[in-house]
Amino acid sequence: MSHPAAPTNLNKLKYFQFDKVINEDPLTHSLTLLGTFPSPDEVQDRVTAIVRVEKTALDAGTAEHLFAADGLVRRVALEESTDIYTWLFGWLGEERERDIKINIVCPATEVHICKYTRQNIVMVRETPDLYGSIVKPYITAFPKSRTQWVENILLGLSEQDKILFSSPDFVILPDMKWDLKTISSLYLVALVQDRGIRSLRDLRKQHIPLLKAIRSEGERVVEEKWALGKGAVRMYIHYQPSYYHFHVHIVNANQVGMVGMAVGQAHLLDNVISLLEIESENGPATFERIVLTYGLGDQHGLFEAMQAASA
Amino acid sequence: MSHPAAPTNLNKLKYFQFDKVINEDPLTHSLTLLGTFPSPDEVQDRVTAIVRVEKTALDAGTAEHLFAADGLVRRVALEESTDIYTWLFGWLGEERERDIKINIVCPATEVHICKYTRQNIVMVRETPDLYGSIVKPYITAFPKSRTQWVENILLGLSEQDKILFSSPDFVILPDMKWDLKTISSLYLVALVQDRGIRSLRDLRKQHIPLLKAIRSEGERVVEEKWALGKGAVRMYIHYQPSYYHFHVHIVNANQVGMVGMAVGQAHLLDNVISLLEIESENGPATFERIVLTYGLGDQHGLFEAMQAASA
Repeated sequence: MSHPAAPTNLNKLKYFQFDKVINEDPLTHSLTLLGTFPSPDEVQDRVTAIVRVEKTALDAGTAEHLFAADGLVRRVALEESTDIYTWLFGWLGEERERDIKINIVCPATEVHICKYTRQNIVMVRETPDLYGSIVKPYITAFPKSRTQWVENILLGLSEQDKILFSSPDFVILPDMKWDLKTISSLYLVALVQDRGIRSLRDLRKQHIPLLKAIRSEGERVVEEKWALGKGAVRMYIHYQPSYYHFHVHIVNANQVGMVGMAVGQAHLLDNVISLLEIESENGPATFERIVLTYGLGDQHGLFEAMQAASA
Repeated sequence: MSHPAAPTNLNKLKYFQFDKVINEDPLTHSLTLLGTFPSPDEVQDRVTAIVRVEKTALDAGTAEHLFAADGLVRRVALEESTDIYTWLFGWLGEERERDIKINIVCPATEVHICKYTRQNIVMVRETPDLYGSIVKPYITAFPKSRTQWVENILLGLSEQDKILFSSPDFVILPDMKWDLKTISSLYLVALVQDRGIRSLRDLRKQHIPLLKAIRSEGERVVEEKWALGKGAVRMYIHYQPSYYHFHVHIVNANQVGMVGMAVGQAHLLDNVISLLEIESENGPATFERIVLTYGLGDQHGLFEAMQAASA
């Protein structure tokens, strides 16, 4: 049964007295409001209420008719169009706030289609043996052209105006995905100069000073440049990474719904440092011996070999 | 400059020939379509295009006027109302698909308000010393009433019809957050009988058989009951957990945007097993010595003490 104060129709909802926004999530397009409704009895004046409003999902069943003559989209406004990329906003009716963002890639190649297509993710267990027989050869054969952009940054040939910190060991600069403005989605990346570290698997006790320097300079940069205090960023390492030149992701700690941040895909820099620190002085290396388990999309270059080996 | 095939207005968009939906994300309310636009030249007939459509975010600036007489919401339909919880759908205009979901808690207590209010997350580093001086006493003082529901399940007093697997060591059942229907968001939990394991910090080499049994029974259950193959679930342990009775989360591997899954909040069961396996036979325990770094919301019971200690 419904509580007598529950606002079950629009007439009752109209008596909502807004107090403040207590949460706002651009990822899920939701707003949470705090306020009051009139009391159903005379004991108290108003009743405190939380109202959470979220946009509905887009129905895949309507996909075919979105842009048709009798389709859902009634009006669009061009935001930008450069080369093959076009951004627009769309309205599902007149005289109202815009309803949708539209991103278009046209013409689209097979690579674009693969990138935008939902992949089925399967967890695979990479033992040291499978690393040696499948993953290491894959990394060695990884086309040099795919990390040319990293080389260009490290050699001082490109994006030098963006660099936030530089030492003989590594540079820190904004990640391409960040808009450089929205602090809540702050995203930096640290790229190391040492080409010998291809991935997490190559980290040894000797790398502790490098990893600690990335940690302290990362914290210093976000404090000096964006006044973010201690503990304001989450730093992590991808495995598998999207390119095999060692790098660390530096992301606002409040940004927790990101895909690349999921356990099994990401390893916290702090925990990696701690594991190396407790490693015995002359014993075998932790990242040489550990089984690393992670999700692989079915379009990933390692998918078939790793799945066959796990079966 | 824009590519000649780029559809920069609604007139051009209307010529989109829909092929199929290549991605659909209910979390971000987006749809990605594959199709074609007419070619601008005579070399080819049609040009392949990807069109990604996403709902716009709700503007916090409009929050005050959502339900007012001249507000954005023109119509609502009651979905359900039980006790203090009310669910409705809302329309921002007539003759169209519903635009928003509305969840209301009324009357709302301080506990509800705290739960729905955005918390500022700060990363803290828990050394073994801080575990001993701050966290362990907090766990010991944790009210027994908060885990009574776990005891009731383990003692066979409640939710027995939901249990998917039971042994003298642990049970597996659906998590409260799962709707028991949507396979893509499958969410189970394994609760262990051993009350001595309060958290990740208590795991030792001797627990390897228990952890491996959870892993294999978890995989067996999702295969037998939902025909999910090998590697279809991601299993992880929270630290800090929301209650200090050892449990493992078992979630569809394709579900990657969940908050509780973020690195620094979650530890992959597989990696925990592997770390215990490479631990030396009679040496000190890894989870006794490691520094555990995680994000704490500013309303968490450990927040003030841990932040003061990290300063």
